[in-house]
Amino acid sequence: MEKLTINCDMGEGFGLYRFGDDEEVMPYVTHANIACGFHAGDPSVMWRTVKAAKRHGIHVGSHPGLPDREGFGRREMKMTRDEVAALVLYQTGALMAFLNAESMSLTHIKPHGSLMGMAMKYAHVAEGVADAALALHLPVIACWNSEMTRVLSARGVSYSCEFYCDLDYDDDGVQIISMQHDPVSPELAVERVRLALSNRQARSVNGKLVDVAVDSICVHSDTPGALPLARAVHDAVADRL
Amino acid sequence: MEKLTINCDMGEGFGLYRFGDDEEVMPYVTHANIACGFHAGDPSVMWRTVKAAKRHGIHVGSHPGLPDREGFGRREMKMTRDEVAALVLYQTGALMAFLNAESMSLTHIKPHGSLMGMAMKYAHVAEGVADAALALHLPVIACWNSEMTRVLSARGVSYSCEFYCDLDYDDDGVQIISMQHDPVSPELAVERVRLALSNRQARSVNGKLVDVAVDSICVHSDTPGALPLARAVHDAVADRL
Amino acid sequence: MEKLTINCDMGEGFGLYRFGDDEEVMPYVTHANIACGFHAGDPSVMWRTVKAAKRHGIHVGSHPGLPDREGFGRREMKMTRDEVAALVLYQTGALMAFLNAESMSLTHIKPHGSLMGMAMKYAHVAEGVADAALALHLPVIACWNSEMTRVLSARGVSYSCEFYCDLDYDDDGVQIISMQHDPVSPELAVERVRLALSNRQARSVNGKLVDVAVDSICVHSDTPGALPLARAVHDAVADRL
Amino acid sequence: MEKLTINCDMGEGFGLYRFGDDEEVMPYVTHANIACGFHAGDPSVMWRTVKAAKRHGIHVGSHPGLPDREGFGRREMKMTRDEVAALVLYQTGALMAFLNAESMSLTHIKPHGSLMGMAMKYAHVAEGVADAALALHLPVIACWNSEMTRVLSARGVSYSCEFYCDLDYDDDGVQIISMQHDPVSPELAVERVRLALSNRQARSVNGKLVDVAVDSICVHSDTPGALPLARAVHDAVADRL
Repeated sequence: MEKLTINCDMGEGFGLYRFGDDEEVMPYVTHANIACGFHAGDPSVMWRTVKAAKRHGIHVGSHPGLPDREGFGRREMKMTRDEVAALVLYQTGALMAFLNAESMSLTHIKPHGSLMGMAMKYAHVAEGVADAALALHLPVIACWNSEMTRVLSARGVSYSCEFYCDLDYDDDGVQIISMQHDPVSPELAVERVRLALSNRQARSVNGKLVDVAVDSICVHSDTPGALPLARAVHDAVADRL
Repeated sequence: MEKLTINCDMGEGFGLYRFGDDEEVMPYVTHANIACGFHAGDPSVMWRTVKAAKRHGIHVGSHPGLPDREGFGRREMKMTRDEVAALVLYQTGALMAFLNAESMSLTHIKPHGSLMGMAMKYAHVAEGVADAALALHLPVIACWNSEMTRVLSARGVSYSCEFYCDLDYDDDGVQIISMQHDPVSPELAVERVRLALSNRQARSVNGKLVDVAVDSICVHSDTPGALPLARAVHDAVADRL
Repeated sequence: MEKLTINCDMGEGFGLYRFGDDEEVMPYVTHANIACGFHAGDPSVMWRTVKAAKRHGIHVGSHPGLPDREGFGRREMKMTRDEVAALVLYQTGALMAFLNAESMSLTHIKPHGSLMGMAMKYAHVAEGVADAALALHLPVIACWNSEMTRVLSARGVSYSCEFYCDLDYDDDGVQIISMQHDPVSPELAVERVRLALSNRQARSVNGKLVDVAVDSICVHSDTPGALPLARAVHDAVADRL
Repeated sequence: MEKLTINCDMGEGFGLYRFGDDEEVMPYVTHANIACGFHAGDPSVMWRTVKAAKRHGIHVGSHPGLPDREGFGRREMKMTRDEVAALVLYQTGALMAFLNAESMSLTHIKPHGSLMGMAMKYAHVAEGVADAALALHLPVIACWNSEMTRVLSARGVSYSCEFYCDLDYDDDGVQIISMQHDPVSPELAVERVRLALSNRQARSVNGKLVDVAVDSICVHSDTPGALPLARAVHDAVADRL
């Protein structure tokens, strides 16, 4: 049986603002995707989150987002391939400095919110992400069956596909990115994970079965009830981690 | 005779805004300090400037500034040591990603504007710069006879001291950071460099001779007439470069 | 013969950055659309530009843009109707404070760049602009034959339509918003204005004649050669102003 | 007996970030100082908070801050008088647009955090605040026995002085602005208010009695336990409101 990972977006506070409780979720995930100061996070929050990940012994990837704090990187913006590549390089490099300071290494890149959504739909955005990943020799966490995975494959970028146990899917098998996340019960999340692992399927908002891929399970720390959800999912797949 | 270098702050445009003409000055300097997106610069400008530096075969250092674009990093802000360290790490790491992408290595850190001014006056700011430099194993361009050089020495951070041929000095031998630079003739700049190299002295705005150190000569690309000034200074010290 | 106006986007510098030379163009326009600190401008630039407009005796409107300085408001962003209304209210109110301080009154709202482009295409964006205009009892400068004019008419918002003598039109009669403006000769600009005034037509990039409306002529201060262009256009229509 | 007011800083969320619960505190205050998008707040948050204040029938003033979201306007920045005046005008005007949209009128200006702190210490900052207040014909909420009240008196700006029942005072009678607020019990807050009203005094962190003025009592919505504190203070002075 192939190994699974559980990843979670973290470090999404900003200044005095808090967003989710990263430390309480860390025991139940294997990889933290840390926000890099564009859609969320700032230098102090990033360093603090890297140190916490070190204490918990989990892997750290960059979580670059669109330059739109007010929209939390969840409003699409028209960008060129070169702008996307520069955006991802900048943010990922910034995070790497804090990992350097803590003698850690970055393990991956996972685009945030609408940057991920745009990379799934638009080849030029996916190419920009690929440019950055190749320049830094880093693998990417991507979404299955998209322009993004097509481009990453074509460019020879290593990637894994994530499954969302706390987001809804539409009938095309695409996760629905909303401005704020609705609560999901631990039981429902585990049920979704089981279906995804056994059948490579998820049930869409309209009840249709859609195909998914599951190299990694994504949990969000800002979903209401994130802690019991993360623990339940972790315990359900513990023998695969 | 010891080697000299000539350094210049570059990449200080932003979006559609231009600031100085970096490429025309590059032939006459040995080190570019590239702005990192806080006081000036943005990911696209940074990458473009790194590529230009590569074409011209010059060294690249980071030029981190205060998070104040509107004030161009030239308005002092109260910051803690940890905030300063995080600020310098973030910006330097971001720039390193573009150097990675171009197979180049960062050679140094030079704080910008009021961040430099604050590091010269306040030990806790200098300590923050030292924290970042030590974490990344990088030398610093600093200013002579300041809290900054005292702290960098005590912490074992390698540094060189720069001399400003296009800024005024006050009677304490401290360069005067103004919001906009006044024009300086190439002749005056060369005369200042000669006095600095021969006597380790500069003439203050009040005509007093003050002590200076000159490991590197700094020229600013936004000083009116920057190109002829840089060329004249370069030619005057060409045998020392 | 109906009265014409000439409007120009102004106050688009930021901090130390300059953008166009507003004061030299002011003698040749009747209305300044002043940037409001989101895509360009800042409080100090806004106040300075309002004072200059007062000295030149020209009218002032707000020129609100998307919250994207790096893209100069020329990269589309997905926004809701409420977000657009709040965006336009905020920026217009901010500018009104400087007009208050100078005992002047705001005469209109003209959306900038991609905010204008989005209002022309998407009804919900046009509705947001209309919400703000109605709340402040202000007329709008709009573009002909668009969702925007349809919505403004339906909502009872007063508006005038502008003609671009320094931008290209596509075959649908829509102006082409580029990141940077190409130079246009004064002769070509005047020729375009004459065709627009006599025939209500413009020639598209592909040579097709498309319909336009001309209540106001727009000139851009960042078009290379803006000064002679503005002067030539002004002189050609002086008897209609 | 003179009338008292109770004021509270509100609208200090940003995008998805929440900060205090304004609506629950509104029944117990008479004046809301609403953040204007620089140290906190954004156009959507501002409009939402204005609408809530309207529902609760409380007065609204502007709460302009330094352009430093990451530091929540609590890190001093060197600014000129003109920069301060422009800063306060811009933010106050922006808020006035939302009041216009709701058929309300702005009642006052209260500088936030380090802008207030700087106005208390530096005459040029106080002059900048006075410039803006005079231009908009608005009174100011200030702090007693400071450069600020000296300048406002000299300039003929109407002002009232606030007393902080949830902040500490130093031995000079100056409130201590910290990055985050410590919890204060409702009992202690009421005791402080009683001492301030009866004796015009407060007890400093070192136990010294210092003089204070109390035209308005300030409560902070981000103090832990803000709701019971506000209710207790409100009830203790209800006959004076």
